[in-house]
Amino acid sequence: MELDRNSTIPLHRQVENYIKKKISSGEWAVGTKLPSQRSLADSLAVNRSTVITALEELAALGLIEGRHGGGTKVINNTWGLVARRKPADWGNYVEAGRYKSNLPMIRKINEAEFYPGMIRMGTGELSPALLPNERFAGLLKNAPSGLLSLGYQEPKGDIRLREEISRHLMAIGIQTELSSILVVSGALQALQLISIGLLDHGSTLILEKPSYLYSIHVFQSLGMRFVGLPIDSDGMRPEKLSDYKKQYQGSIVYTIPSFHNPTGVVMTEKRRRELLLECGRERLPIIEDDVYRDLWLDAPPPCTLKGMDQSGNVLYIGSLSKILSPGLRIGWVVGPAPVIDRLADIKMQSDYGASSLSQWAAEESLRTGLYEEHACFVREQLKARRDDLAELLDQYFSDIAAWRIPTGGFYVWLKLVPKIDPHLLFEEALRHGILLNPGVMYDRGARQYLRLSYAYAASEEMKKAIRILRKLVMELAGGEKIT
Amino acid sequence: MELDRNSTIPLHRQVENYIKKKISSGEWAVGTKLPSQRSLADSLAVNRSTVITALEELAALGLIEGRHGGGTKVINNTWGLVARRKPADWGNYVEAGRYKSNLPMIRKINEAEFYPGMIRMGTGELSPALLPNERFAGLLKNAPSGLLSLGYQEPKGDIRLREEISRHLMAIGIQTELSSILVVSGALQALQLISIGLLDHGSTLILEKPSYLYSIHVFQSLGMRFVGLPIDSDGMRPEKLSDYKKQYQGSIVYTIPSFHNPTGVVMTEKRRRELLLECGRERLPIIEDDVYRDLWLDAPPPCTLKGMDQSGNVLYIGSLSKILSPGLRIGWVVGPAPVIDRLADIKMQSDYGASSLSQWAAEESLRTGLYEEHACFVREQLKARRDDLAELLDQYFSDIAAWRIPTGGFYVWLKLVPKIDPHLLFEEALRHGILLNPGVMYDRGARQYLRLSYAYAASEEMKKAIRILRKLVMELAGGEKIT
Ligand SMILES: Cc1ncc(COP(=O)(O)O)c(C=O)c1O
Ligand SMILES: Cc1ncc(COP(=O)(O)O)c(C=O)c1O
Repeated sequence: MELDRNSTIPLHRQVENYIKKKISSGEWAVGTKLPSQRSLADSLAVNRSTVITALEELAALGLIEGRHGGGTKVINNTWGLVARRKPADWGNYVEAGRYKSNLPMIRKINEAEFYPGMIRMGTGELSPALLPNERFAGLLKNAPSGLLSLGYQEPKGDIRLREEISRHLMAIGIQTELSSILVVSGALQALQLISIGLLDHGSTLILEKPSYLYSIHVFQSLGMRFVGLPIDSDGMRPEKLSDYKKQYQGSIVYTIPSFHNPTGVVMTEKRRRELLLECGRERLPIIEDDVYRDLWLDAPPPCTLKGMDQSGNVLYIGSLSKILSPGLRIGWVVGPAPVIDRLADIKMQSDYGASSLSQWAAEESLRTGLYEEHACFVREQLKARRDDLAELLDQYFSDIAAWRIPTGGFYVWLKLVPKIDPHLLFEEALRHGILLNPGVMYDRGARQYLRLSYAYAASEEMKKAIRILRKLVMELAGGEKIT
Repeated sequence: MELDRNSTIPLHRQVENYIKKKISSGEWAVGTKLPSQRSLADSLAVNRSTVITALEELAALGLIEGRHGGGTKVINNTWGLVARRKPADWGNYVEAGRYKSNLPMIRKINEAEFYPGMIRMGTGELSPALLPNERFAGLLKNAPSGLLSLGYQEPKGDIRLREEISRHLMAIGIQTELSSILVVSGALQALQLISIGLLDHGSTLILEKPSYLYSIHVFQSLGMRFVGLPIDSDGMRPEKLSDYKKQYQGSIVYTIPSFHNPTGVVMTEKRRRELLLECGRERLPIIEDDVYRDLWLDAPPPCTLKGMDQSGNVLYIGSLSKILSPGLRIGWVVGPAPVIDRLADIKMQSDYGASSLSQWAAEESLRTGLYEEHACFVREQLKARRDDLAELLDQYFSDIAAWRIPTGGFYVWLKLVPKIDPHLLFEEALRHGILLNPGVMYDRGARQYLRLSYAYAASEEMKKAIRILRKLVMELAGGEKIT
C-alpha cells in the first residue's frame, strides 16, 4: 500500500480510507484485530500520530473499537457508515455554521444531567423535590381497573382528558370545542408536528431573539429559517414584523409571551394587542407557546393571545411538564379544527398517540384538583427559590453582571460584564460539577449571557454554585477590567 | 361582481375565490353571516349548485361553517389557508397516485374504530377483553412513590427498563449492551426515527410486498421509495435483492420475518440465513420488525435475524403493543451503539423521551413476569379465536376465497375469488357495521385481498360479520361466476 504524498487528501484521511476499504471489502471482517499502531505506521511509512488520528475517526464512525490492553478490533461494517452519512443531511440547517457548536453542547447537557452530584444551574425542569411523587402514587393506587384504557387511543387523545383540558383552558379565558384540542406527548412534540405538518420546507419563522426555539432543532432540521425580533421588558417588539415578513418571507410567528424562555419577560397586555393586530394585518398566524403560564410568582400574566384573538389566528400550546411532571409527556395544542385535524393525522402517523397511562394520569390530576393544588405549592416554592437566587446574585454578581428579577417561570437571564468565552466557562463549570446553560444556546450572539434556573438546584447547591461561578468568571476574565 | 364566463377557471372556483377575497380582505370578518345560497346565486348569476360547490370547498378549507338553520358563517381567515396549502406537500409521496385512496381509507378506519357497535374485523390490536386491565390496576396500586420518576428521562430511556428489555432479548437469543437499546414510544416511532435519522431523502427501502409499511406514510412522506419483493410461504424471497439494489438504488431492507403483517407468514430459518447472507454480500442493512414474535400459536418462530447476525447489520424493533398494551406506547430498537446514539438524539429532539409512567409500568410488567404470564394467556386465547375464524371461513368462504391458516400473529390474508371493488366492499361493510382492512392498504395491487384479524372481535361478532361479509361479497360480485 502506497499513500499519495502529493495528494490534497491529508495523510490521516488516506490511512482512514485504506482501513475503511479493508473493512468494507470484508478482508478485515467484524471481530478482526487490527495491526498495532506502530506496525501500521511502519508499513504505511507515516507518523504514529497520523495513524492515531485515522483510528480515532474510525472509532467515531463506530467501525472499530479499542480495548484497554486488548488492541483495536473491527466492530462494524455498514451501519456505522450509514449513520455517518447522516449528520451531514440532518444537519442541513439553514444556519448550519451557527449551530455547530450548540448541538454538541446540548447533547453534553442531556448527558451530564444524569451524572451523579451535578449541580444543574440551567435546567428547565423542576427539582424532583418539587414533583408530586406522593400524590401521584396515591392517584395510581386508586386507579379503577375499568377506567384504564390500554388499547390504541383516539387520534386527538382521550376524550375525558380533552374535557379536562378544555375546562382548564376555560379558566384562562380560552373557549374551545373538544375537536379543536389535540393531546400531544409534550409541547416539544407539538412543535415537531407543526414543523412537519403545517410549514413548507424553507419557511421562515419570526420569533423572539433569544428564544428556546434556537436551542432545539425541529424547525431548522427541516430547512426552516429563523428571523429574530428584539425583545424588551414588555415582550417581543412587533414593529418590524411587517418588514421582516416581506424581507424574509416570514410565514408564521412563534412567541413565548408569558415568562419567556430564556429571558423571563412577560409580554404586557398592550403589547399582546399590538402583536395580534399586526399579525392580523400581515396575515401571519401565531404559535403561542404558553408552557410557563401557571408559574406566575407575583401576579398572573395577562390574558393569552389565543383568548384575545377573534379570528382563529393563534395556535396555542400548553403542557403539564413545568408544573406536574415532565416525565408524563402530556401537552396540548389548540387551534382551528382543520389545523388540529391535520396535526392529529400526523400524530397518528408518528406514534399512534400519547401514552394512555399518561393521559389517564393527566386527566385525573386535572379532574381531582391535584394539578391546581400542586401549582399553588410550586409557585410558593419557586418564589422562595427565586428570592434566594436573587439574593445570591446581589451578593456575588452585582459587580460583574446585570439581570432582571423574573416575575414567574424558571429563569434569570444573566448578562456577564466580562467578555469570556462561553464554551470555556461551560467546560470549566462542568469540571467543577456545575451544569450551565450558556446564552449562546438561545441566541448565537448572546455570548455574555447565562440562563440560570432556580427551579432545580437546592438552596445550598445554588449557593455553592454561585460562589464557584463567580470565581470561575473572575479567573476567566483574567486581566480584563471590570467596571 | 362579474364572473368571467370565458375563463378556463370553472365558475364554482371563481365564486370560491370571490368569497375568499371578501374574507381575506376583512370585508367579511370572522363571525360574519354569509348571504343565503339563493341570494349569492342570484347576485352572481350562477346556479345554486355552483354556489353550493364553492361553499363546500370553503368549508373544507375551514374558512366557513354552516349551522343547521342558522345559515353559514365565516369562522376563520388565515389558518385554514395555511393548513390547506400543506396536504399537497406532505402528500408529496413518491407513489402519490398509489396512496391517494389509501390515506382517506386509513383515516376513515382510525375514526370508525371509535364508533360504538362497530365490528372490527381487520384491526391490528387485541380486544380489550384480552388486555390485562385487572393485573395492571394491581401493578399501579403497588407503585412505591419513590420509584416513580416524574422528571425528564435519560435519552435512551430508563436504565431499569433497558435492563429488563435486555433480559427479555437474551431469552430470544439477542445479546446486547444497554447502550445499544433505545426505548421508543411504540414500534411506529422507531420507524419514524429511522426515516428521519438514518435515511436520505430519496432512499429506497426493499421490503415484502404486501407489507404493513405500505399502510403507513412515515417513509413515503419523506420522499422515500419502496421496492417490493415477493413473499412465499417461507417468507421474503431474497433472490432479487441484488438486482433490486442495483436497479432501484435500494439502501435498506425492511422485513417482518415473524407472523408477517398482513400475510401471517413466518420466514423459515433457512430463508433467514439466505437473507442475511445476501444482505451481507450486498452491504444492505436490515430493519427487522419483530413486534409479533411472542404471538406464536403453535410453535415459536425461528431465531431472530438480529440473533443470527454476526456483523451488526440488523436493526431490531420490538414492542409491548401486541401482547400487553398498545396504549402504553412502549417499544425498543436495538442496534450498533452509534446508530442507537443517533436515534436517541433524534428522539430527544422529537419529544424528550417516552412517558416515564409508561416506562415504569413496562419495566414492572417485564420484571414481575406479568408480561410473560399474559403472553401465555393471550396465546391461548388467540389460538381459540384463530380456530374459530378458520372454521367460519371454511363454512362461509370456502367457495369464494382462499387463505392460509396462520401459525401466529393476528391475521388471515384472505384472497377473494370474485373481483370486486375493494373500496365498495369497504364502504358497504361499514354501512353494515363491519370495519374491514382491505388488502389494497398493504399493496395497491392486492385488490382481491382482505386482512382479517381474529384478535379483536368477539366470537359471536366474528360469526355475524363473516356471515354478512359473505352476503356482501356475493351481492357485489353480482353476475360474476364463482368457480
Ligand atoms: C418554551 C418551551 N416550550 C416547550 C418546552 C417543551 O416542553 P414539554 O416538556 O412539554 O415538551 C419547553 C421546555 O423546556 C419550553 O421551555
Ligand atoms: C409490523 C408492525 N410494526 C409496527 C407496528 C406498530 O406497533 P406499535 O404499537 O408498537 O407502534 C405494527 C402495528 O400494527 C405492526 O403491525
